[in-house]
Amino acid sequence: MKSWLNISDNSDFSIHNLPFGIFSVGASKKRVGVAIGEQILDLYGVTSKGLFKNKTLDKKVFLQDYLNPMMALGKSITVPLREEIQNLLVSTRSPLRKMPKLFINQKDASLHLPIKITDYTDFYSSKEHATNVGKLFRDPKNALLPNWKHLPVGYHGRASSIVVSGTDIIRPKGQTIPMGKSKPIFGPSRLMDFELETGFVIGKKSELGKPIKCNKAEEHIFGMVLFNDWSARDIQKWEYVPLGPFLGKNFASTISPWIVTLEALKPFRVQGPKQSPKVLPYLEYRGKKNFDINLDVVLETKEGIATTLSRSNFQFMYWNMSQQLAHHTVNGCNINIGDLYGSGTISGKRKNSYGSMLELTWRGTKPIKLKDGTSRKFIQDHDTIILKGYAEKKGIRVGFGEARGKILPSK
Amino acid sequence: MKSWLNISDNSDFSIHNLPFGIFSVGASKKRVGVAIGEQILDLYGVTSKGLFKNKTLDKKVFLQDYLNPMMALGKSITVPLREEIQNLLVSTRSPLRKMPKLFINQKDASLHLPIKITDYTDFYSSKEHATNVGKLFRDPKNALLPNWKHLPVGYHGRASSIVVSGTDIIRPKGQTIPMGKSKPIFGPSRLMDFELETGFVIGKKSELGKPIKCNKAEEHIFGMVLFNDWSARDIQKWEYVPLGPFLGKNFASTISPWIVTLEALKPFRVQGPKQSPKVLPYLEYRGKKNFDINLDVVLETKEGIATTLSRSNFQFMYWNMSQQLAHHTVNGCNINIGDLYGSGTISGKRKNSYGSMLELTWRGTKPIKLKDGTSRKFIQDHDTIILKGYAEKKGIRVGFGEARGKILPSK
Repeated sequence: MKSWLNISDNSDFSIHNLPFGIFSVGASKKRVGVAIGEQILDLYGVTSKGLFKNKTLDKKVFLQDYLNPMMALGKSITVPLREEIQNLLVSTRSPLRKMPKLFINQKDASLHLPIKITDYTDFYSSKEHATNVGKLFRDPKNALLPNWKHLPVGYHGRASSIVVSGTDIIRPKGQTIPMGKSKPIFGPSRLMDFELETGFVIGKKSELGKPIKCNKAEEHIFGMVLFNDWSARDIQKWEYVPLGPFLGKNFASTISPWIVTLEALKPFRVQGPKQSPKVLPYLEYRGKKNFDINLDVVLETKEGIATTLSRSNFQFMYWNMSQQLAHHTVNGCNINIGDLYGSGTISGKRKNSYGSMLELTWRGTKPIKLKDGTSRKFIQDHDTIILKGYAEKKGIRVGFGEARGKILPSK
Repeated sequence: MKSWLNISDNSDFSIHNLPFGIFSVGASKKRVGVAIGEQILDLYGVTSKGLFKNKTLDKKVFLQDYLNPMMALGKSITVPLREEIQNLLVSTRSPLRKMPKLFINQKDASLHLPIKITDYTDFYSSKEHATNVGKLFRDPKNALLPNWKHLPVGYHGRASSIVVSGTDIIRPKGQTIPMGKSKPIFGPSRLMDFELETGFVIGKKSELGKPIKCNKAEEHIFGMVLFNDWSARDIQKWEYVPLGPFLGKNFASTISPWIVTLEALKPFRVQGPKQSPKVLPYLEYRGKKNFDINLDVVLETKEGIATTLSRSNFQFMYWNMSQQLAHHTVNGCNINIGDLYGSGTISGKRKNSYGSMLELTWRGTKPIKLKDGTSRKFIQDHDTIILKGYAEKKGIRVGFGEARGKILPSK
């Protein structure tokens, strides 16, 4: 499959991808777009011109601040819609070829938070990450807690402070406890960290009291994003017992602007790791529910010098998205269109595949050398952290773009 | 101050109260109402008749599924509005006296979830409760954790499953760990509990990166509700280390339908408990920030026989709402109109003032005798739990009504 558009072979936004996002140009209203190569196809424009076969589509769905109303149409509408867009971009007789105004250069557009986030939950589903954290903070010989292999551990997070890639992040202030002291001090966090995660977005709601079965869970998943769960380790350490992370996390999280659909990720499905001990029946699943997605973390200094900190992969996840959703709802908890679910930090087995500074520098004991000769234990002011993600197989490339954020000094 | 309406002296909804809620009658659209005695004043109707002095008010604000658009007008509008309503209900020459259709009997109306809940956070701010839990599950000699007196411990909760009083609650299923075993089992929770809490609702947003000062926090608080943070203790126990409560809580929480404004609660302000050690400067506050609100918990059996399980009081709170909000935002976390913040279980010093079955029955070791001769360690199927709350002083009574929920068997 090839588009009549000029798309670079290594573009994240190939004709096989077609992720959805929200953009604006200048003072124009926000609208729904699809990323293709270096451009954005304006879906409000496409609908206004009457180019879709589905004439019952209300064009207002594409002139929105968020993707939620479009996702609410359901996969029976959005999946064929994406296929139609693909046809319009492939067919040599496509009417789009004579409508250059419907294509906006990504450089000329502002990309916005793509979804109105209803609830946000973060999981903790990478065995390597949970093991590293257990070794660092608890017992190296019993690094995984007793419940970890029986259920996808998760906790609720803050929806209000999730921002789109490119938004600057102010270093948070808070209480921390100096080594060996019993009284906390107040000031800017000194242990700023990123967490390399992906997130998935809900496109179909469920009812309170009705669990979602593991093998039906993907019907509810619209697509995936990159997700940086910024963490202030010193604030987190002092506050998190017994009720979990709070101010150490909720000052900000960053998501990538384009939602890559599950349909686009289909060629990259792989078998997940063997789960032993055997999971309870409600967590059993059939088929390939993991995805082979390369994930990179880059640190860019104030001067713009970039160093790759980590190369990980989403297929390392012990618990898959379907299991996470089945577990989350097994008690009757309901989900809504616009919910976001974070994977938890995705660490691989190798030391250069860990998904946080905490693990990469082993709690600051092994600083990372950067390309400019300086080193880092944690993130410094004016450092930019960039998450990247892409899947690639047999010449098909489907990428996520990036989730980027620069740390600014505390005010 | 006395209304020309016939209002019982012991009504929660006196002329001094005037809480806001969302109601409908039959198939009518949802709209904003104010509770007065046994009736509801239809504010959409009042605005449609042009009875408010403020002629710039858009009546559509009162024909809504939620109070959020009305709260968004700001206190500079809503506080005088409430005073105008009070005048209309007091003045002997009030035009309302000739408009009986604007009053709906509460028995004839459906009361709905009053706010579209954006984010929900639960605190853990009763010293007595935290001490009881520490004694039960950790070290009786060091019941409070080291951070507890330095910061109002809080954690994020689930917004989607918060329901209005009167909604039945299905007993959740989940993983639990049998005593002395290492493998979990799956089934209905056997340790269903309530948590007696209040909640406060945000009427004014803040910006990401801009902390709210403790002495400005009340500007953001529209009002308060009763809040039952239903808890499945056996599910919670197995899942909650290290990231906090999750499925043990998020199957449902119940709020009362009427939001009692901070203005109505003004006569009941009291000094909070002395905080020692001294708090950090960002948690210091001036004036009376606690409120003397009586809180009762009643268990009603399937046959309708009611037993009061607990009598507590909101003034027992160690950390006040202003401190909770100052702490929540000190790292830059932003708040939104419609956010809900739970107090945490409110236990008093006496054994009959504890705010959960866990504490009242001391983890099931001291069952409670009910009026029908049966006893309870935890909540049984078909039991109804009713939270009630009211403040009373010098003949002025301001009440919350109730937050009621019946436990139905697992499906």
